Amino acid sequence: MAKLRLNITMSLDGYVAGPDQSEEDPIGVGGQELHEWVFPLKEFRDMHGGEGGETNASSAVVNERWANIGATIMGRNMFGPIRGEWPDESWRGWWGEDPPYHHPVFVLTHHPREPLQMQGGTIFEFVTDGIESALARAKAAAQGEDVWLAGGASVINQYLAAGLVDQIDLSIAPVILGAGERLFDGLERGSVKLTQTRAVDAPGVTHIKYQVG
Amino acid sequence: MAKLRLNITMSLDGYVAGPDQSEEDPIGVGGQELHEWVFPLKEFRDMHGGEGGETNASSAVVNERWANIGATIMGRNMFGPIRGEWPDESWRGWWGEDPPYHHPVFVLTHHPREPLQMQGGTIFEFVTDGIESALARAKAAAQGEDVWLAGGASVINQYLAAGLVDQIDLSIAPVILGAGERLFDGLERGSVKLTQTRAVDAPGVTHIKYQVG
Repeated sequence: MAKLRLNITMSLDGYVAGPDQSEEDPIGVGGQELHEWVFPLKEFRDMHGGEGGETNASSAVVNERWANIGATIMGRNMFGPIRGEWPDESWRGWWGEDPPYHHPVFVLTHHPREPLQMQGGTIFEFVTDGIESALARAKAAAQGEDVWLAGGASVINQYLAAGLVDQIDLSIAPVILGAGERLFDGLERGSVKLTQTRAVDAPGVTHIKYQVG
Repeated sequence: MAKLRLNITMSLDGYVAGPDQSEEDPIGVGGQELHEWVFPLKEFRDMHGGEGGETNASSAVVNERWANIGATIMGRNMFGPIRGEWPDESWRGWWGEDPPYHHPVFVLTHHPREPLQMQGGTIFEFVTDGIESALARAKAAAQGEDVWLAGGASVINQYLAAGLVDQIDLSIAPVILGAGERLFDGLERGSVKLTQTRAVDAPGVTHIKYQVG
């Protein structure tokens, strides 16, 4: 059965994005520092049309994360910096005309918008009727593969609180952000049952995987 | 030179103790769950006068943490549940007459109290003139060995903010506490520079070590 998988990088003080997201700071102020472990990887450069890069203990982890994913769910703030009503159709995501998803991406928002067909197989669909609806649509679209819960923190925490996440693979970066979007916020004690299934010591990051439930 | 070393277990949502500490819940409600990985260890049972126990990937980690420690610093709430003035001399810590420290323990408090000589080499000394004074006294008492920064979160966060911690060995437990005492709280972005030096995948816990500064 298709799983809802959360793969994300968190600072040591619990943030998955810095404060004050903007077009200049898509992951908030300081948020880029979370991902310094991934930028040098050959796997990352391949995916973003770059060249070279290195292979290290993180390589197998990112390959596993990106494999068998047939659809993605994200919050509206992960899709872009615009708040409130869509002023027009001009914002098409942070990733250019060929985003690195290559499958349907379901964007949770309160404001309806027509689907956005991009190059390379990515289509952004805007879901206004809640997280369970988005999950049902994503699972159907994934055609037997898993669904990636991409972020941000608010959407992730809603899915966690609702008991809908099956697996977490968390990268813990050696960074203190001090402010921003906090993962695992607002959850009640014991509401998420976790079993650690592996941890990987990689250059500048630790990857810990949990089975949920 | 003597180092100030922080060795502590944190929940996935960032807490090192649950809420509502009391004589019945020394680590707050749910706080015991943080330490489930350590209770089965032979090393833990040996230290607390028990028998049996197992050896696993955590064993080398706890042996390393407990080695070369000549003094401990803790906050007043880690020493006991009493707040405000000491009503009398009757509270002598959570650990009975032979606490597992076997060296000088400096307790930070606003309320003066005479030193408390316990069995087995532990002596509790109460420090009222601040964290730097406690560190200087602990380093002198440690006689060339390192100083363990034991907790709780409030004291640890003060030492981190002051740039006085040299090394962190953090155990991350697969637990959501939802409330309690938060580690790394109130720190500014970039105020603590961390370099990950190793991570250990152990049963039910991940241990990550950082060099600070």
